[in-house]
Amino acid sequence: MIHAYAAQEPGGPLEPFEYDPGELDAAAVEIEVDYCGICHSDLSMLDNEWGMTSYPFVAGHEVVGRIAQVGSHVTTLAVGDRVGLGWHAGYCNVCASCHSGDQNLCATATGTIVGRHGGFADKVRAEENSVLKLPEGIDLESAGPLFCGGITVFNPLVQYGIRPTDKVAVIGIGGLGHIALQFLNAWGCEVTAFTSSERKKTEALNLGAHHTVSSRSEDEIAAVAGTFDLILSTVNVKLDWNLYLQTLKPKGRLHFVGATLEPLDVGVFSLIISQRSISGSPVGSPATIAAMLDFANRHAVQPVIEKFKFDQVNEAIEHLRSGNAKYRIVLER
Amino acid sequence: MIHAYAAQEPGGPLEPFEYDPGELDAAAVEIEVDYCGICHSDLSMLDNEWGMTSYPFVAGHEVVGRIAQVGSHVTTLAVGDRVGLGWHAGYCNVCASCHSGDQNLCATATGTIVGRHGGFADKVRAEENSVLKLPEGIDLESAGPLFCGGITVFNPLVQYGIRPTDKVAVIGIGGLGHIALQFLNAWGCEVTAFTSSERKKTEALNLGAHHTVSSRSEDEIAAVAGTFDLILSTVNVKLDWNLYLQTLKPKGRLHFVGATLEPLDVGVFSLIISQRSISGSPVGSPATIAAMLDFANRHAVQPVIEKFKFDQVNEAIEHLRSGNAKYRIVLER
Repeated sequence: MIHAYAAQEPGGPLEPFEYDPGELDAAAVEIEVDYCGICHSDLSMLDNEWGMTSYPFVAGHEVVGRIAQVGSHVTTLAVGDRVGLGWHAGYCNVCASCHSGDQNLCATATGTIVGRHGGFADKVRAEENSVLKLPEGIDLESAGPLFCGGITVFNPLVQYGIRPTDKVAVIGIGGLGHIALQFLNAWGCEVTAFTSSERKKTEALNLGAHHTVSSRSEDEIAAVAGTFDLILSTVNVKLDWNLYLQTLKPKGRLHFVGATLEPLDVGVFSLIISQRSISGSPVGSPATIAAMLDFANRHAVQPVIEKFKFDQVNEAIEHLRSGNAKYRIVLER
Repeated sequence: MIHAYAAQEPGGPLEPFEYDPGELDAAAVEIEVDYCGICHSDLSMLDNEWGMTSYPFVAGHEVVGRIAQVGSHVTTLAVGDRVGLGWHAGYCNVCASCHSGDQNLCATATGTIVGRHGGFADKVRAEENSVLKLPEGIDLESAGPLFCGGITVFNPLVQYGIRPTDKVAVIGIGGLGHIALQFLNAWGCEVTAFTSSERKKTEALNLGAHHTVSSRSEDEIAAVAGTFDLILSTVNVKLDWNLYLQTLKPKGRLHFVGATLEPLDVGVFSLIISQRSISGSPVGSPATIAAMLDFANRHAVQPVIEKFKFDQVNEAIEHLRSGNAKYRIVLER
């Protein structure tokens, strides 16, 4: 039996819940969970915001643990290996995206907490190809959030060939943004943080930003017109996107990893005149996650976390809901 | 003296107009105009739609002619050379965009018909670096529209590394779209035309499309979900862009070369989930224009034109305004 914490209804409290996972699939592994981050999408799923949650619902998709059991076809992982698991717990392996190394874009990829039980538990299962070995020496407590929050902001740097000579800005210094600043600094870029809060300016500079711009000041934003090769937006609120477009260089890109719900209402003329792009991306592929783990380990990029015990999971969730988490929350055994 | 046709006020008729261009700049050439295309942006400028027209206004930026005179510093062009001139008549040569070979994105590039007189004339001047020699054997009558309409649809194929294995769609089969279909077919792509008109379906197939989809049928559009690597939108009306986004493959790009005035109102979730991009671009750089001319010549890509004599310029403009031009209009001596 697996001992988990589950909600029985949208927004409901997480209570102890046991389930029998059955026989282990040949291509799967079972992970003994040591740490599990809480991501904003755990909340969205808990509340059934996206209409795809099934109850009882076990959240948790930023797992760090050890391999407890391997299926009969598993060849690259062994019992005792230190591993991590993120948003995806399996891929079809046979579609054009999987064939191209873009498993994260596989239309039938299995979500770790979609239609199955996630990492708020003593054990969780996943297919071998979605489970990554942790590099020697990586900080185990804070590694979990790399598997969703971290890869979400790291992936665009790989996808769009961002270079150390590029000037990159991050909008929103929170759960995603605070990792983005660290990655970009280590990547060699000139890094600017757009933030609405005075307090966060200092924190942004400590996290790796070279400059900060107030996202509440049209004057400050106008003053950096034509500056950035890439802007990563990590927020989920509507901003004046046309104003931000003006801060891009010719050929610059405004990239969304935060799921703003309101339409973008951007003017096409501003795209045409300076050959600008707008885009978005989800988490990354297994190969990109592996590259990120190695890069994070070499450059000491670490999510800044607050820890709660697994049996404090409801408190932890309320803390995340309050908007006061600094910056990621991790459950520990 | 240069003998031109000029409007004295927004939307006014074009009437014979003489001006003295003064001494030829050291870095400039004078072109004797044999043909000049009429582009939709000539109309926009004539009507001062963009608020940057000065009167008397001489339109014309799709020029084909012969070098009549060269400035003292000119080294690559000589009297008698067959040349063409497009939207830009000069670049600063010293900004980051110019340094990078992106002269078309130079913020202070000189527009051929912006604050100076264009090609509806017996002669027109431009800086050496914006004037391109025509390849031997190219059709002179139809080459003019390549210098604005042609390069506008060719440039994205170069900018985004479109491959012959890609599936590409074109929205709108008009002055831009009918050239795009030919280029894409010659590029080796599988080509689809989105068009609202039954008549144009046949024409699109003749121009190089392999498939057509009715842009008026949501069912037909839904049936090609997940198909395209690139969509080139050449229209200037508002369509259901979120519906078109669905027809892109993962990592696909919806690219605008038509200046739709209404905001795009796209959903960011659809960008994120499949790593899609939205972008726009203007005309191309001198190097890209040169590559286009060579490619068009080798593959017999030719704008489909209707010819008018220079002294019929007002009729020609009314024909373009009527929306019935098939597909580009060229003035000839």
